[in-house]
Amino acid sequence: MDKLKQMILSKGETREGNILKVDSFLNHQLDSEFLYEIGKEFYNYFKNENITKIVTIEVSGVAIAAMAALFFKVPVVFAKKSESLNLDKNIYKGKVYSYTKRKEYNVMVSKRYLNKEDNLLVIDDFLAQGNAMKGLIDIIDQSGATIKGIGIVIEKGFQSGGTYLRENGYNLKSLAIVEQITKKGITFG
Amino acid sequence: MDKLKQMILSKGETREGNILKVDSFLNHQLDSEFLYEIGKEFYNYFKNENITKIVTIEVSGVAIAAMAALFFKVPVVFAKKSESLNLDKNIYKGKVYSYTKRKEYNVMVSKRYLNKEDNLLVIDDFLAQGNAMKGLIDIIDQSGATIKGIGIVIEKGFQSGGTYLRENGYNLKSLAIVEQITKKGITFG
Repeated sequence: MDKLKQMILSKGETREGNILKVDSFLNHQLDSEFLYEIGKEFYNYFKNENITKIVTIEVSGVAIAAMAALFFKVPVVFAKKSESLNLDKNIYKGKVYSYTKRKEYNVMVSKRYLNKEDNLLVIDDFLAQGNAMKGLIDIIDQSGATIKGIGIVIEKGFQSGGTYLRENGYNLKSLAIVEQITKKGITFG
Repeated sequence: MDKLKQMILSKGETREGNILKVDSFLNHQLDSEFLYEIGKEFYNYFKNENITKIVTIEVSGVAIAAMAALFFKVPVVFAKKSESLNLDKNIYKGKVYSYTKRKEYNVMVSKRYLNKEDNLLVIDDFLAQGNAMKGLIDIIDQSGATIKGIGIVIEKGFQSGGTYLRENGYNLKSLAIVEQITKKGITFG
């Protein structure tokens, strides 16, 4: 998606340690009209997959998933993060290790909102090592639902998440794959 | 907004302690097409206020604000919650006491995304005692921006937040005001 690459180049900020910040349109300030276009792009890619629900993780995935849902005309379910152990038995629960925050947290989805008849599109803003995605897949597997596609806005191609998902047979579409982040700039795959 | 009241009556769940859960369309599962209508309703109400940005707090406000932003054609800025003290000096910071979680947390917005020229519409899903809103207003006041309106999806009319905001001169529009939550059901103001 050319416009996304242009946005990353013009508005993204790089930090040491392969960090790419896109706070001005995706992670703190949101460019809703652009997220609407991103949602449409995911729809064009996955529209024949008979999607019944879109699943994401709070926070940054929510607006993107909500926009995509306008095209698919299906509900969004967002997994909630929690550091505490929720004893409610009516939830599916997964664990995620966050490298940026250096701690493990739980993600959870109420059993009401996922079931084995669902065909899911999983959407998230970033894919790096894929830890959040693995936690979410764990939750979805517990529900018996089928993952028909995974839509990512920005994949860090030099980290292992994308390779893991493709090798495990997931239909992964990343709208931009960043291959290198150096002092000179960003290159795409 | 009649459709919202119908959704609350048909899909809302009440719990002891005046708790109203609308997880099936607003707080865990999202009905995007309905949120789009809610965004349009806020636009119809505040469209002459020369809004330059929409501000909300993660998580549940984000999708609603993003939908409203499609009509206003302005960016959304969402305040981030954090329990830790972020030492970055480039943020505005406020404190919120959460009664449901029984703890205080910080909310923060980068100084980049709010400034004194901004005319803001503040959007959130619920207004009860108004603690989150007061934290957000504190942040906005630090930036020098003007609050032109506050749009709330569900106000608990029997709690003090709405009264506080109206008495302090804010242009508050709550799409549904719940006056009573009893075993027999919900009544609106």
